[in-house]
Amino acid sequence: MGAKPKSSRHAHEYVHGYSGREYQRLRDQSQTLAELLHHDTFYPAGSRVLEAGCGVGAQTVILAKNSPQARFTSVDVSPASVKTAEAAVSRAGLSNVTFQPANILKLPFPKASFDHVFICFVLEHLPEPVRALRSLKAVLKPGGTLTVIEGDHGSTFFHPRSDAAWKTIQCLIDLQSQGGGDALIGRRLFPLVRSAGFRKVKVSPRFVYVDASRPAWVEGFTHNTYIAMVEGVRDRALAAGLIDRRAWEKGIADLKASAGSSGVFCYTFFKALAEKS
Amino acid sequence: MGAKPKSSRHAHEYVHGYSGREYQRLRDQSQTLAELLHHDTFYPAGSRVLEAGCGVGAQTVILAKNSPQARFTSVDVSPASVKTAEAAVSRAGLSNVTFQPANILKLPFPKASFDHVFICFVLEHLPEPVRALRSLKAVLKPGGTLTVIEGDHGSTFFHPRSDAAWKTIQCLIDLQSQGGGDALIGRRLFPLVRSAGFRKVKVSPRFVYVDASRPAWVEGFTHNTYIAMVEGVRDRALAAGLIDRRAWEKGIADLKASAGSSGVFCYTFFKALAEKS
Repeated sequence: MGAKPKSSRHAHEYVHGYSGREYQRLRDQSQTLAELLHHDTFYPAGSRVLEAGCGVGAQTVILAKNSPQARFTSVDVSPASVKTAEAAVSRAGLSNVTFQPANILKLPFPKASFDHVFICFVLEHLPEPVRALRSLKAVLKPGGTLTVIEGDHGSTFFHPRSDAAWKTIQCLIDLQSQGGGDALIGRRLFPLVRSAGFRKVKVSPRFVYVDASRPAWVEGFTHNTYIAMVEGVRDRALAAGLIDRRAWEKGIADLKASAGSSGVFCYTFFKALAEKS
Repeated sequence: MGAKPKSSRHAHEYVHGYSGREYQRLRDQSQTLAELLHHDTFYPAGSRVLEAGCGVGAQTVILAKNSPQARFTSVDVSPASVKTAEAAVSRAGLSNVTFQPANILKLPFPKASFDHVFICFVLEHLPEPVRALRSLKAVLKPGGTLTVIEGDHGSTFFHPRSDAAWKTIQCLIDLQSQGGGDALIGRRLFPLVRSAGFRKVKVSPRFVYVDASRPAWVEGFTHNTYIAMVEGVRDRALAAGLIDRRAWEKGIADLKASAGSSGVFCYTFFKALAEKS
């Protein structure tokens, strides 16, 4: 669903860019979705948790607040993002997180260093998600848990229906794919996590349903998270010739109609929980 | 999601047909989905409830069991379906349901006859769903509730992804559309029910997630409900020239892969609850 490129080696290709508006979008996103995605993630006192790909710390703050007595190590491939995340955690008055820049595929930790691993909105950007999961498994203790959260842009549907709107979403999917990622990764968390050798894989979908009776979601999710995310790739989609300006504007206008008084917007996130043997 | 054509005036065009296999499919469907769709529908003792479009009684049995002291009137446009439903209710040992053939658009009841109205998998088959909802509102008492349940075939997504599989689903959508229906109606329950003049409209999605860790759902939903439903339109899709035989077989094989050990299948139902002013 976005977030910073984190442990990808292709930081410069990060599909959502690094603008100030993108930063604001990530903050809106994390606040609206926090309850839906994270309400059931708690780590015991004293446990060591690796957050892989913390980005600007949107999830870090929620995690660290939910489990104030767990000790988090949050890493990201981008040193700039790590600094931003560190500042966010400090502003939130939290002291149970240590940060360092690191690549998921070359983690600077001994084997079996962590009781738990958490990774959110990262695998979607990586060309080899199973390899990343195996790398995370190596630093996890036997019996430790893995938590993975991903979106799936192919799960998007809305009313009124619009092919033009779909074309703008397809631009985002195509650009992410060109960068080696998969914006439709959510649906395949189950086979991915199993392929990496984890056991007891349990996936739970997190369905987002938005109509006019839920104005906070219209604003916080449909507008400020989803449509803002699509709009964020406008210039690159036009430059890549994936769409022309008129088609883009029509598509965005149609997407916005799904946030109107008779509109409906649906999207699904997936959360996988698994164990290392 | 199927079920008999019920109160449609186009009974002969019912997209899923009237075969014995279709009857079995509807029974599998209702058993697997009963908890997900109906666990939160209960009617008070003594209340009068209209079930509009009972079909062969798949939902009737669940409703009547859940609310043994409510009095149900179940109608369907097909006298044969009404007879089948009546037998099913009788076999289940229930005595709180009366049946009669009736067309939703010409209900043989005085205004404000019912405390509650329930309608499930019916609007998807009707060319004028808002007109049907207005007709139901007329026989509902002020302050009474409407419950509507519908699927949305456009909400379907699965792993492995397959355009061939999508083409078979599209055949079903197209055939239903040619019959005046809308297989993607679920997403627009909110505006539909509001357009019919109901208030306090609240829609809740019911997301079906199926992977190999849920074998009862692989069998009961992906295979026996969804794929069986798509396979049910094979002959008509071929006869209508919507697809050729080879493409059909490839598509069905791909759909079945989504029910395999590395497959994932997702579908969303929508349930709307609303009140008459």
